[in-house]
Parts: sequence; structure tokens; C-alpha cells
Amino acid sequence: MTRPPVRIAIAGALGRMGRQMAEAVRADPRLALAARFHRPDSAGDGLVSRDEALAMADVVIDFTTPGASADLARFCANRGGPALVVGSTGFDAAELADIADAAKTIPIVRSGSFSLGLNMLVGLVAQAARTLDADDWDAEIFEAHHRHKVDAPSGTALMLGQAVAGGRGVELGAVARRVRDGLVAARPAGEIGFAVTRGGSMIGEHSVSFCAEGELVTLSHAAGDRIMFARGAIAAALWVSGRPSGQYDMRDVLGLNG
Amino acid sequence: MTRPPVRIAIAGALGRMGRQMAEAVRADPRLALAARFHRPDSAGDGLVSRDEALAMADVVIDFTTPGASADLARFCANRGGPALVVGSTGFDAAELADIADAAKTIPIVRSGSFSLGLNMLVGLVAQAARTLDADDWDAEIFEAHHRHKVDAPSGTALMLGQAVAGGRGVELGAVARRVRDGLVAARPAGEIGFAVTRGGSMIGEHSVSFCAEGELVTLSHAAGDRIMFARGAIAAALWVSGRPSGQYDMRDVLGLNG
Amino acid sequence: MTRPPVRIAIAGALGRMGRQMAEAVRADPRLALAARFHRPDSAGDGLVSRDEALAMADVVIDFTTPGASADLARFCANRGGPALVVGSTGFDAAELADIADAAKTIPIVRSGSFSLGLNMLVGLVAQAARTLDADDWDAEIFEAHHRHKVDAPSGTALMLGQAVAGGRGVELGAVARRVRDGLVAARPAGEIGFAVTRGGSMIGEHSVSFCAEGELVTLSHAAGDRIMFARGAIAAALWVSGRPSGQYDMRDVLGLNG
Amino acid sequence: MTRPPVRIAIAGALGRMGRQMAEAVRADPRLALAARFHRPDSAGDGLVSRDEALAMADVVIDFTTPGASADLARFCANRGGPALVVGSTGFDAAELADIADAAKTIPIVRSGSFSLGLNMLVGLVAQAARTLDADDWDAEIFEAHHRHKVDAPSGTALMLGQAVAGGRGVELGAVARRVRDGLVAARPAGEIGFAVTRGGSMIGEHSVSFCAEGELVTLSHAAGDRIMFARGAIAAALWVSGRPSGQYDMRDVLGLNG
Repeated sequence: MTRPPVRIAIAGALGRMGRQMAEAVRADPRLALAARFHRPDSAGDGLVSRDEALAMADVVIDFTTPGASADLARFCANRGGPALVVGSTGFDAAELADIADAAKTIPIVRSGSFSLGLNMLVGLVAQAARTLDADDWDAEIFEAHHRHKVDAPSGTALMLGQAVAGGRGVELGAVARRVRDGLVAARPAGEIGFAVTRGGSMIGEHSVSFCAEGELVTLSHAAGDRIMFARGAIAAALWVSGRPSGQYDMRDVLGLNG
Repeated sequence: MTRPPVRIAIAGALGRMGRQMAEAVRADPRLALAARFHRPDSAGDGLVSRDEALAMADVVIDFTTPGASADLARFCANRGGPALVVGSTGFDAAELADIADAAKTIPIVRSGSFSLGLNMLVGLVAQAARTLDADDWDAEIFEAHHRHKVDAPSGTALMLGQAVAGGRGVELGAVARRVRDGLVAARPAGEIGFAVTRGGSMIGEHSVSFCAEGELVTLSHAAGDRIMFARGAIAAALWVSGRPSGQYDMRDVLGLNG
Repeated sequence: MTRPPVRIAIAGALGRMGRQMAEAVRADPRLALAARFHRPDSAGDGLVSRDEALAMADVVIDFTTPGASADLARFCANRGGPALVVGSTGFDAAELADIADAAKTIPIVRSGSFSLGLNMLVGLVAQAARTLDADDWDAEIFEAHHRHKVDAPSGTALMLGQAVAGGRGVELGAVARRVRDGLVAARPAGEIGFAVTRGGSMIGEHSVSFCAEGELVTLSHAAGDRIMFARGAIAAALWVSGRPSGQYDMRDVLGLNG
Repeated sequence: MTRPPVRIAIAGALGRMGRQMAEAVRADPRLALAARFHRPDSAGDGLVSRDEALAMADVVIDFTTPGASADLARFCANRGGPALVVGSTGFDAAELADIADAAKTIPIVRSGSFSLGLNMLVGLVAQAARTLDADDWDAEIFEAHHRHKVDAPSGTALMLGQAVAGGRGVELGAVARRVRDGLVAARPAGEIGFAVTRGGSMIGEHSVSFCAEGELVTLSHAAGDRIMFARGAIAAALWVSGRPSGQYDMRDVLGLNG
């Protein structure tokens, strides 16, 4: 017996990510696009109100703003569902507390990146770091992004650094080497190095190399298109539907947490 | 309290790998080079007989020939030790049976490759293959070796293919695509592709890419020097010393089996 | 004194490439979008007829069909201009003869790929092949494309192979090694090897490696977005405006021919 | 008619590079190993004095020290030959003046690196930089070396940066971006970026990427073994034999200068 399609409501339906999500949900036979809303009282152009949308859905997918997502989480918790997939970023402490509170009542998947590949990479990097002796295997992180990116290293590169540090049971801040320039002395064991490239329109490449005497293991991810985020959100929606209350991330969805 | 050095005997001490192993053992404070022998009755030039060598060692490291290794395994089992690290390759069925039989009495680590990095790679590839949906993520294996290599794809590339196939619960033979030339039609989901490069003096590069819409995860290994095999054998010797009887491989040493 | 903007007419203005070209021309201060036409008699929606368009332009950019391009070339030659940038592909012999004939009267840039980077790569590969001794430096070509591509190796990979062969003064057909599988024997000097990967949505990667004892030179190109073709066509239009009659390609535009 | 073997004398014959050079010369049928000397008055163990060695050779290959090489250059110039291939590094101004002076009388090839591949790379990078518009194509240099290297970026990376800057007609110092850390703002056009990795025993990798909207050209070199330097010195010796007096470098040998 086939599982009936999971019914999806899309929040922020008029935004770029909302439109892309709707298209991806429509194309996937495991899902049914039940409703789209943009604001609590939206209507017309195929949109319904938030109340109506939530009543029709097993899972809401929400790539909007931190405030709107925290508000939606409280609202869904109060009415006892549906489940929530949250892709907004930049939450403050109060908003995070709201999400955590709502997750006592409903299941919520929240992640800073819905790329399945990147989350897979983080999990594999953590495992390699746990397994390979830090005295023998130097960890080096490389990232490349387009010319418009204003921060360095990327948030994802730092997350990969934390995966290495966590796997080794150390604090990233104590071992990160963010810059090498001039007479830098020989590389101390245990250091986690970062190298940054900026240019053109590269959407994002990340790699972590573990470098020993005579051999090298490199784990990498390349992003080519934002469609990958929609695919990750769909995987999260399929996974979270019918799940117990709690706050989850993409590594839970991938089965990489414990 | 520091663990006392593990006492190592080197078999095949006059061979290239035997010499390299002795040098690596001498350089490692966690080990003591207890004895070197080349044949059962060897003597002179710092060599002792096999009997003498085994009496002084916690672990014998043996990169010799299948026949000599099977013989040594039987001999060690009969006398109740020491533990054994076997790096010979090309065993026939009778020799493998001898090793398995000896492993009922003593602990033996045997592996086709003592590269820690390659064994790590195989473990990570299997995990990625279990996690990433084969319908979305196309698996492609690439390997590059020096111009003198006569077979293709490399044995390691095929082992990586088996790790992908095993992670997906399929037979490699049923899904391997070893050649693409001419009008090949669109790529079927589930296929495991191979690509081969030969040239110069490259010691060996392997990579496995998982390719989805809009993103790519690549796991790779590059070999630069045979010293990596000595380091892997040392890790195996440290791990196997004092272990219960049984036959183990490098993924046990790395903690990647179960 | 600044050069006045080069006036561009876009042929096939309602096609995907025609729309993208118009957008790119509008964004470039060195150009003026003078006219857009779709068929000889098009009108409305900002379109004009072919006659009107040609009267207003210094250069026509034409990514349409072989037949339409050959027709346009004849037409432009008969009226003595404007210059032509042709990106259509798949010409038959008669159409190529029409283009060559028209190029006796007007300047025409025609190319199978308007990627500046790929044309640059071909030029550098030819130079490396002329310089590096084929007995010492094994040439290997790698390409990766999306899962929907039906032929292998890609046309661009074969073009790179011809650049290597041409640089060495040999015929590609005599030295190409398109497949390696099984017991293949050691690699003969002079061979040009091909390796192919297919998966996901990769737009196209190509690399040529020259592999010697102890070192490796790799020249590669990665495509991420079709916008690169519009940029190449613009470079061609700027270069061809005011040029003497003749047929040119992108390597002329890049200054790599002679 | 075959060219008779070029007769080679090896200076510094007891050093590591001297021994490797002698082995490589012996293995090459285009050369004859005519004499080996270590000091002006060396003798025994197959060595002869400097005077004797020079009398038997068409070319001296000298990987010794700056002082010894400057002295040898003066000495060869005074006696009117033989030609000289100099691989010593770290010359001071007076020593460089000695070499330049000697080159008025005899032909001398001097280079900071005798890797044919690296010199090829520098030539190709300069050509790409001349050809690709700096406003569209962001240049980024990456290098990776072993954990013992104490300076960053590597001298070779800086040489590649100068090749880019020279090809664009700018000063490297004015456009080099050696570090990116924190809020760095969007990348200005024209910048030449550097990224550095240190780990394991990597002998040396260098790459230069030219990154535009939607495409990327990368030119790279990987070193695997010091034997490449001997091959480059042999190519230089074959090239310089019978050449007019003057000072040359490896790009002359490769035919890349003008």
C-alpha cells in the first residue's frame, strides 16, 4: 500500500523561495500542494488565509523571515499542528526561544541550510575527524564564492570547522588558523586552517582536506543551483510528517545524528 | 601511567617494505623494534631466527608473500602468539583458510591496503551511499594512476564501487557502467559509473562523486608516498596488541565496522 | 574620446538566446540595443522588420538556426553590411558555403561555442601541446556533464583532443584512447586519453592534464551558467565592428590565432 | 644523422641533487656523463678536478650554492666555455652581477625552478592574463604545501601573481589581496587573491583561476617528485649546448619568451 501524499502548505508563497518550493512540491508525486499563503490574511491569486492553509496541511514549509517564522511556530503549536519546516535564517534569542517552545508541542525541522549534500558533508567530516588522529592528519578547509560575498570565511566553512573541532573534542576558536601570510612558521599539529577564494559567480564550493604524510583525504561539496534547497525542504517535509514533537535539523532527516 | 611500548617483530626484514617498516617502527615512541627476521632460520646483519623473533614480540608485522604469511599465521597460532598484522596480497583459498583458522587462536589484522586514508574513504562512501537516495544522487567513480598500470579500473576503484553498491543494497555487477563511448543515451538512475586516467607517475587518486540536481558531494583520496602503508600497519599493530583472537581488517582498526 | 556605443541588432529576438542577448546588450554601456527582429517581416512587441533592423545596426547577433543564419549572411552581404556574429550550430555544407561567400563582403564571426573561457582553454592547450614533449608528457582529457547528455565524449572534449593532436602534429584518430577497461597494458607514449563522467545537473566541466614523471599540468574549464555565451557574443560584436571582411572565430577575437 | 650526445659535467657531484642529476644523465641517450666534480680539486670515487671536468664537457650542470655557482661562471667564462646550467638559488647582487658578466662570453641558463611544468604554467598564466579582460575575469591563486613550509604564500605563488599582474600591465603589490578574514566587502575588479593551505607532506600544488560570470578557467600544477627538476635541467642542457652567449631562463628553453 502506497503512503498517501503528504499535504503541504507553503508560507511566504509570493517570495522567490516560496514560488520555487511550490513548483517543486507540485512536481513530486509523494506530496500534494494543499495550500499557499503569503500573510495571515492573504487571498486571491490562488492564495488562502493562514487559518485555511493550516487546516488543509500535514506540513507547512516556511522560508520567510525570523519574525514571521517564530510567529507561525507559536500559532501552529497553539492549534496543535501541522508540523513545520523552517528555512528562515538570522533568528534572535527570543525568536529561537519561541521556536523551541513550539517544538514541545509540534515537530519542527529547522536548519541554516537545506542542502542535503552540505548536511551530508558536515556529517562525514565529523566522522572523519573523530576517526583520524589529529597529530597525523592536518585539517584544512577551503571555500570559494562569488565576488559579491562580503564575509570570509563563509558561515558554512566555519560550520565545517566546528564539525572537525567537535569530532576532535576541541574548541574551534582555540585551533582555527584563519590567515597565513608572511613568515608563518611550520604548521602546528591540531590547527584547523581556512583558505578563501572569491571570484565570478560561483554559488559556493567547500572542501575539507585531511593531510597526512604521503596521503590526503578530501571531502567536498559544490553548489550549482538553489533548487537543491527545495529538494532538501521536501525531504524534511516527508521525514517530519507524523513525527513526535521536538526540534530537529537536517542531520536528523539524513539519519546522521547518533 | 604510560602504556609500555608495543614490541614489534618484522618478518621479511630484507624486503623493501620490511626495511621501511623497521625504520617507521624505530621512529615511533609507542613501539619498540624487538626483532627482525627474513626467513625461519635467518641470522646475522641484525637478523634473528623466526623462533627467537616471535619470543620477543607482542605483534609481528608481515608484508611478505601469501605462502609465507599463511605459514607464519599457522606457526604463531600453534605457539599461542604473538598477534599478527598481515599485508601480503594475492592469497588463494587454501591460504585464506589457514589465516582464518589461525585467527581462532590469535588476533590477526589482514587488509588489501594499509592506507588509513583509503580505508576511511571506503567507510565514508558506504555511509553516503546508504544516506543519499540513489534516484536523486548519481554515483560516479574516478581514478588516476601512472602510465605503467596495466589494469582498469583499479582494484581500489572497484572496491569503492562495491562500497556504493553495498550501501544501496544492490550488486555492483548489475549497475556498473565501466565505459561510455559514442551515443550512450541519458544516464539511468542507479548506475555506478567509472572513469579512468593514466599518465606520468601518479601514485594513485580516487574519488567518488554523488551528483544531484544543483549540487555535488565528492569524496576523494590521493596517495603521494608508500610511507602511508607503514603508518597504517603501525596503527594496526597498536590496535591489535592485546585484542581477543579473531580476524580483523583496517575498518575495524578505524572503528568503522558497526 | 570615448568610442560611441556599437549599435546591435538581435536576430531571433523571441528565442531564449535572443532574449538573453537583448538583456546583456542593454546592460553593457559599450553597446546600444538598436533593434530586435524575429522574422524578416516581424513587428509589434518592440520588434521591427529585418530591413529596418539592419539599417539601424553596426552588428547583428544571430543565435537562430543554420538555415536562417545562412540566409541572413547572404542578405547582409548583398546590402553591404552590417557585420555579423553567428552562434547557430549544425550547418550543412551548402550553408557553410553561403557563410563563406558572404564573408568575402562583410566581416563574420562564427563559432561553435561563444564561451570565452573555453576558447581560451583550447588556445592554451594547443600551446602546451606544442611546447611539452609528447614522449614525456601524457595528455589526458576529462569531461563531466549532466545525466541527460546522450553522447560521449562531449564535442568540446574532442575539440580539446584535436587541439592536443594539432599541437603535436598528429591525427587525433590515430592516437585517441576513448576507453580503458580490463587488462589494458601500460600506456603508450603519445596516446590521448579520454575519461567521461555523467551525473546530476552539471553544465559542463573539461580538463586536459599533461602528466610527466613527478609533475602534472592541468588546464580546465567549468561552465556554470549560459550567460557566458552572451558575454562571448558581446566580445565578438565589439571586436568585429569595423573589421575588414572575412570569416573569423572566437580565437581571433581572443587574439590567439597566430 | 643523429646528433652526438651532449657531454655533461656535474658540479657538486656529492650533493643530493648532484647524485640525482648524474643518475638522470646516465639514463638519457641524448647525453653522455663526461665528468663529475665536487670541489675545484676533487678526486677519487669517480670524481675529477674542476679543470679536468670542464675540459671534457659541452655543458656543466651546477646545483650547488650561490657563491660556488658565481665562481664557476667566472671560471668558465675566462676559459671560454663550456655552457652552464645553474640551479642554485638565493644569489646576492654581487653574485648575480658575476653571472651576468660571465653570460657575455658563454651561454648560461639560470632559473629559480627547473620544473618544466611550472615554467609552462607561468607562461600560460601570463598569456591568459593578457587575453582575458580583468574587469570580467577575477584572478585567484591557490597553493598547498607540506606542514613544514614556513612562508606563505609560496615564492612560486607570488611568481604566478606577477605573471598575472604583468599580463595585465599592473604592479602585483598594488592589487594583491593576500588575506581575507571577517567582513571584507565585495571583491573589487582587478584584485589578485591568494589562498594558502598547509598540511601533510604535499610537495607543492599551485593553481590560478580566472573566474567570470558563469564560467571559470583554472590552470594548475602539481609536484610529486624532485626528479622533475633533473628532467628540466636536462632539457636546459640540451637546449643551451651550442647556443650563443647570453643569460637565459627556462621560459627561453620552453620557447615561451616572445
